[in-house]
Formats: sequence, C-alpha cells, structure tokens
Amino acid sequence: MAALCWEEFYRENPEPKHISFVKSQITEFCEKYRREQIPVVLVTSGGTTVPLEHNTVRYIDNFSAGTRGAASTEYFLTHGYAVIFLHRSKSLEPFTRHFPSSSLLEVLHIAHDHHGKDCIAVASDKVKDLLPVLQAYQTTRSSGKLLILSFTTLSEYLHMLRVAAEALQPLGRKALLYLAAAVSDFYVPHENMAVHKIHSSEGPLNLQLQLVPKLLQPLVRFWVPDAFVTSFKLETDEGILLEKAYQALQKYGHKLVIANQLHNRKQKVVLVSQEKQVPIVMTEEEMRQGKEIEEKIVLELTSLHTKFLHEIA
Amino acid sequence: MAALCWEEFYRENPEPKHISFVKSQITEFCEKYRREQIPVVLVTSGGTTVPLEHNTVRYIDNFSAGTRGAASTEYFLTHGYAVIFLHRSKSLEPFTRHFPSSSLLEVLHIAHDHHGKDCIAVASDKVKDLLPVLQAYQTTRSSGKLLILSFTTLSEYLHMLRVAAEALQPLGRKALLYLAAAVSDFYVPHENMAVHKIHSSEGPLNLQLQLVPKLLQPLVRFWVPDAFVTSFKLETDEGILLEKAYQALQKYGHKLVIANQLHNRKQKVVLVSQEKQVPIVMTEEEMRQGKEIEEKIVLELTSLHTKFLHEIA
Repeated sequence: MAALCWEEFYRENPEPKHISFVKSQITEFCEKYRREQIPVVLVTSGGTTVPLEHNTVRYIDNFSAGTRGAASTEYFLTHGYAVIFLHRSKSLEPFTRHFPSSSLLEVLHIAHDHHGKDCIAVASDKVKDLLPVLQAYQTTRSSGKLLILSFTTLSEYLHMLRVAAEALQPLGRKALLYLAAAVSDFYVPHENMAVHKIHSSEGPLNLQLQLVPKLLQPLVRFWVPDAFVTSFKLETDEGILLEKAYQALQKYGHKLVIANQLHNRKQKVVLVSQEKQVPIVMTEEEMRQGKEIEEKIVLELTSLHTKFLHEIA
Repeated sequence: MAALCWEEFYRENPEPKHISFVKSQITEFCEKYRREQIPVVLVTSGGTTVPLEHNTVRYIDNFSAGTRGAASTEYFLTHGYAVIFLHRSKSLEPFTRHFPSSSLLEVLHIAHDHHGKDCIAVASDKVKDLLPVLQAYQTTRSSGKLLILSFTTLSEYLHMLRVAAEALQPLGRKALLYLAAAVSDFYVPHENMAVHKIHSSEGPLNLQLQLVPKLLQPLVRFWVPDAFVTSFKLETDEGILLEKAYQALQKYGHKLVIANQLHNRKQKVVLVSQEKQVPIVMTEEEMRQGKEIEEKIVLELTSLHTKFLHEIA
C-alpha cells in the first residue's frame, strides 16, 4: 500500500493539544526577527516515537541523542542567528548538554560562603570549562534569541514542523531550516493502535507499519518556498549514502542534504547540493582537542546561506 | 509459535562484551556484604530496547523514566541495604534525579570566591532542597553501598539479570530482588534482524515479534531460590490488574507482586502476596508536600523482608 498523501496524514492524526500556544510563540518569535532583519534558523533534533498503543506503554523509537541539533544550535547563535530549537523531549539541549546529570554530583562540592553558611559550588578545576558555557547560556537567555520547544511522538513533531514552517514563511530567504531530527519512516495509523497494553498472552506480535508521507515535499513547495532548506541523510551502508542524498535533492528540490554515516557521523559528513559535494572532516588532532564537527558544518552552512541571500540582493 | 525456553534464549542472544567485568563487580559486592551480614537488594529500573536492526537505528522501547527504581534505591539505602542498581542507560539515577539537567543552568550562578576569582554556585534559595541530596550522595559514595550498572537492550538486561541473580544466591534469604524494570514481552530474534537500516522504499513494514521467555521462572526456581523476590505488574486496564498479579504469583512462586496502573502509579499501588493485598495510597496532602510513594513501598517491603528473615531465625 502506498503512503497516504500528506493532507490525509494531517487529517487522520490529531493535533497536539497545545498546538495553538506553540503557534503563537513561534509566530511572535519569527515576526520579531523579521522586523529586526535577523536570520532565523529552525533546528529540529532528536528522534520521534511511534506509539503502538493509545495508553502508551510501548513505542518504536529512532536512535538519536540529539547531539547534532543541540551543538549546532550553539554555533548558529554565535553566528548571530535567532534559533527555534524543536527537539525531542529529554534529548540533549544546547548549553545544558555540557552538564550531564549523571556526572554532575561528582563536580558539586559543599562549601561555606563568607557568612559561614553552607553553599554548593562547582569544583574549581571544572570552572574553566563550564564558565564559558554558563556565560553563553545567560547571554542567550537575556537576548531572547533562542526559542526551545519539544515533542515526543512522530505526530506531534509533524504538526509542530508545519506550524513552524508556516510561521517562517514571511522571512523569505532569511529563513534557514536545519532538519536534523531523526524522523520515523513508519508509523501505526491512529485507528489501528491498540487501546490498552498489548499482552504477551495474545501470542507473538505482528505489527503492520505504514509509510509516513514525505513532508519535505509540501514544506519546500508550499510552506517555505523561498527558504534555505537543509535536510540530513543518515545511513549505515556507505555504498548507498550519496545516491540517497542526490535522490532526495531531486525529489524535494531543496538546497542541501547533509549526508552522514551512523558509525563516523562525528568525524565526517558531506554537504551535497545540486552543484557540488563538500566533505567536512575532522582531523585526529581536532577530535583529541574535543572540537565538534558541528562548528564546521554551521560555519559552511551560514556562509552558503549568506551567499544565497546576496544572490538576489 | 510458543516462546523459546529460557536456555535457548540465552544461547541465541549473545552476551554483552563486558559481561565478565560486570560479573566480577557484582560478585565482589555481594561477597563483601554477605560477610558483613548486610542485606543486599537488586533494583532493576527503566525500560529495555528491542533493536530492529544490527546497526541499530530503530528499536522498540517501553515507556519508563526510571523514577520508581531510582527513588526506591534512595529509600533502600536509608534502611541500611546495600543496593545493586541495574538501570537502563540514561534513565533516572538515585540522587542525580534531583538535579534535572534541563533546569540546571537556571539554578547555577556566576559568583566570586574570597580571592576574587570566578566561581559557579547553586542559587542560595535552592541550597535548602539540594544540600541534603548532595550530602546523602556523598555519604553513599564513601560507604560503597551502591553499585550502579547500566544496560540498553533487552538482551543485555537479561544477561546481566542472570549474572546478578547468581551472584546474590550465596546471600540466601538476605537477598531482596525488586524487579522494577519495564521489560519488553516481545523481541526480534537475533538472526531475523536486518543488517542495515530498513528503508521506506521497501514499502510498509511488517514486523514479526517473538515472545520473550519469562525469566522469573528460572530466577525463582534455580538462581535465587531462597531470596525475597518482588516483581511489578503495570497495566492500563484496572479490570485485569489484580487477576494478572495473582496469575504471576501462582506461575512463578515468588513472594510479592507490586500491582500498579499507568495513570496513577505515583498515587497508588497494591502489594499482592498469596496471603493478602496491601494497598499503599498517597493522600492529596502528601502529594502536595512532594512526598513519594516509593518511601512507603520500601518501608513496607523492608518490614516484610525482616519478618521473612526472622521466620527461620
């Protein structure tokens, strides 16, 4: 059976309850930066879940910690962009990702302030690394240039993506889309989900998953026709990666596919456009120093976006 | 098709690479507390993943933040137990759960120490709540009474569970098992997994999931025949909950099932044994004060365990 067309998908999968609040937040954010002539990037990040039951106990998930989106957001901010960070709930977030809660208690010390009262402080040998992060976080917060929104399910994500894209439309070419979320290709249609937890006493489980329609198509064609749209292609099989990237460019007509492989995605990506392939590679030395490939990706991307803005200037 | 017997499941699903290291850690931990005559509880926590591909991009997951196991671990420690905390990687951990990384940067302030150097401190209005947690963490760390281990997949979990149970056996009745992990009932057999990412171009996805054998059976019968074994039963349908709990007791012959419903599991559970049902309920007032039901569950359970130890004393 073929995938539903995207209009049907939206009709059959109900909007999240808070969608109108999300819409007003995003619209206000985009309008502010449109007036100030500041470019806005929508970063999507993390995986989507596909619930198998209405009262959800089980779901299908996509592997994604959200490092790519969270790290890239920090670099977009340093390049002057306003960022809508649309991420999977509990996946990594910009700035906070540097303070992993699992090791946090190891770096917190009990001390005394100058009144002799108990206080809690970050160990002095960690301050050097964490201070710039905390400062950047506080600067960003007071600038208001980062809007953080979260989703969990595939359906929530797709509804929020449409709302965000429509709000970005008035920005024209100044809108950049950086679609790094790992979106499921398959889902269980709303009307086919079990109401209660599926029991093992019912025997082996046979799941029929439908194809998710490709939303990149209406996004590029109707929602943000002037924007600079970038998508990601992740494969585990190198042999088909670039071919898949070109197929996507051809099919959807957007500007760029960032192609990467699961096992070395932190060392190498290829920016694939109709005109050329630009490989971005981290050296061993850069990896040792803890540098991140997202810094290079965002540098290249903002430079391409600036050229794109000047093409019609 | 019926589930494999448990021996076959273990044969067909390879051990995690680090299993012998895990085994030596757990064995050493149990041996120390056996000598010191201190009871040891194994707390399992969080959901298990079932990979759909060998190069894992997609997996089926069970809903579980890990609150139950992480909170209970703290209370077991206050009751003098040594705790093996076997949890899903990235799910909540004892103590650190009180410092959620998403709100952390809001409570950290940049200050100056008495030498005028920059330092990072927790906001003074948060110190009252967080200081006791940090103190309890530091006390636990220096006592060595908490062993934290993690798993991700169903297969890793089941291998680690067996190793842990076998190491607990010499403790006899002094071993308590508190099996709070949300373990998948279904899995994709190792030899049926796709090698590479499954593509949407292959059309709708038809997944054949097999039943996971019930490991509680060999656990109670062979691995820890003398221990006090407690399992959990989570349902979304209240009508079948107690019936399912009794069925489990009958089938596996362990001591206790903690029955709970998805929607009110933080307000109500029922401890179900062959002899009686003990409901544990939180009042509205207790909920408002931020008290946790795990405090009451662990109080009741340690009291039952103490009685059980005295039965043969």
